[in-house]
Amino acid sequence: MNCKLYYWPAPFRGNFIRLLLEEAGEKYQEASVEEILELYSKPVEVQPLPMMAPPYLHDLDHDVFLSQMPVIVMHLSRKLGFLPDDAFKSSVCLKLVLDSNDILAEITNLNGNTMWEYEKWKEFRQKRLKRWLEMFEETGKGFGLSSKSEYMLGGDQISMADLVTEALWGTMIRCFPDLAEDCRRHAPNVFQLIQRIEIRPKIKSFIERQQQSYGSSYCGGQIEKSIRSMLEKDRQ
Amino acid sequence: MNCKLYYWPAPFRGNFIRLLLEEAGEKYQEASVEEILELYSKPVEVQPLPMMAPPYLHDLDHDVFLSQMPVIVMHLSRKLGFLPDDAFKSSVCLKLVLDSNDILAEITNLNGNTMWEYEKWKEFRQKRLKRWLEMFEETGKGFGLSSKSEYMLGGDQISMADLVTEALWGTMIRCFPDLAEDCRRHAPNVFQLIQRIEIRPKIKSFIERQQQSYGSSYCGGQIEKSIRSMLEKDRQ
Repeated sequence: MNCKLYYWPAPFRGNFIRLLLEEAGEKYQEASVEEILELYSKPVEVQPLPMMAPPYLHDLDHDVFLSQMPVIVMHLSRKLGFLPDDAFKSSVCLKLVLDSNDILAEITNLNGNTMWEYEKWKEFRQKRLKRWLEMFEETGKGFGLSSKSEYMLGGDQISMADLVTEALWGTMIRCFPDLAEDCRRHAPNVFQLIQRIEIRPKIKSFIERQQQSYGSSYCGGQIEKSIRSMLEKDRQ
Repeated sequence: MNCKLYYWPAPFRGNFIRLLLEEAGEKYQEASVEEILELYSKPVEVQPLPMMAPPYLHDLDHDVFLSQMPVIVMHLSRKLGFLPDDAFKSSVCLKLVLDSNDILAEITNLNGNTMWEYEKWKEFRQKRLKRWLEMFEETGKGFGLSSKSEYMLGGDQISMADLVTEALWGTMIRCFPDLAEDCRRHAPNVFQLIQRIEIRPKIKSFIERQQQSYGSSYCGGQIEKSIRSMLEKDRQ
């Protein structure tokens, strides 16, 4: 398919979209920051679809725009064959991407609204982050995920649920390696799944290219610095 | 269909789910606060599906649970015939419910994380709330919505997009009547659409019953008081 992604040069929400396109072997364009800002700043009446913040996707095959990360992920998953036919599994896929969106908001202290304070961070890492990890673990186990085989929703092929799991936890752990231990402890089967996904050739190549471009950058800005300083305190 | 909703006794996120069931003429049960707290407090491994905060839906026909409001809304809309067949319109439906979720988070100052300060509130009402209203207005107009006829996504029957619009703006305006003027000014066709939806017999009856039960309560808690005190300042 022919499409153009409008997202900041950072992994964060963008990786949920990029991983689907990369695993499907699709060529896609990424808009420049200038193009993103131009579209973002337009009055609502002249936007191709009324949209708040990026990511946006321009589906060039149908010349339509979409916004809201989970909408784009559902659209691409359906088109690229990553969405399960089963209605309940498809609902679980949407749930996992909405849970992910909540987790991204939480780890950035409500999308960078204020910087982290250490007491709040400690509580987040010990309680909420742990529970979110357990939720992914138990969801996978409910469908037969084990340490050596199977996917998040069972079956014998990768689905949106696996790529969402990688986009969330895989990306987070690569950018903040201290959190690998949280994942290994609270979601051991998810941790193993991530290892299996990251050696798939197209994903491996994507991760290498992204690390060359962005290093260990996660969401950027002051809030990323704040997360790093919290992790530094945790190590002391 | 046979289902049970687990949501606090308040309109807020619950109305997105209730309005679908009411317009479809479905009988459904509402869990008591004790039942909600019991399910919410369970360790992840013994929940029927790993879930964070309500709303939850127990689909008793298939004995499955779902969480995340937009997931439940998509599931019910598909089942009850409110989801358009057209793939793009279906994506727009999902986008509108995700936009709504963002708006609910914003009007409650990030889900009640802190209470409103007046300068921040003024900026929210004048800029963000205005833009969100314009977005709904322009989305509808793009599909042919006018002041007297048509639905959010065109066609000749009510869809999920209309019920989401009513659940978001209709509920908000009923609970905070001062905001009716914001809607009338920035989204005049949406405002008229809400009037047409609210005289539909099943919706009308639901609204009357809800107002008898909850009065003008919106989301409850300290944050509702904070919104009301901001509106009071705006009136001075």
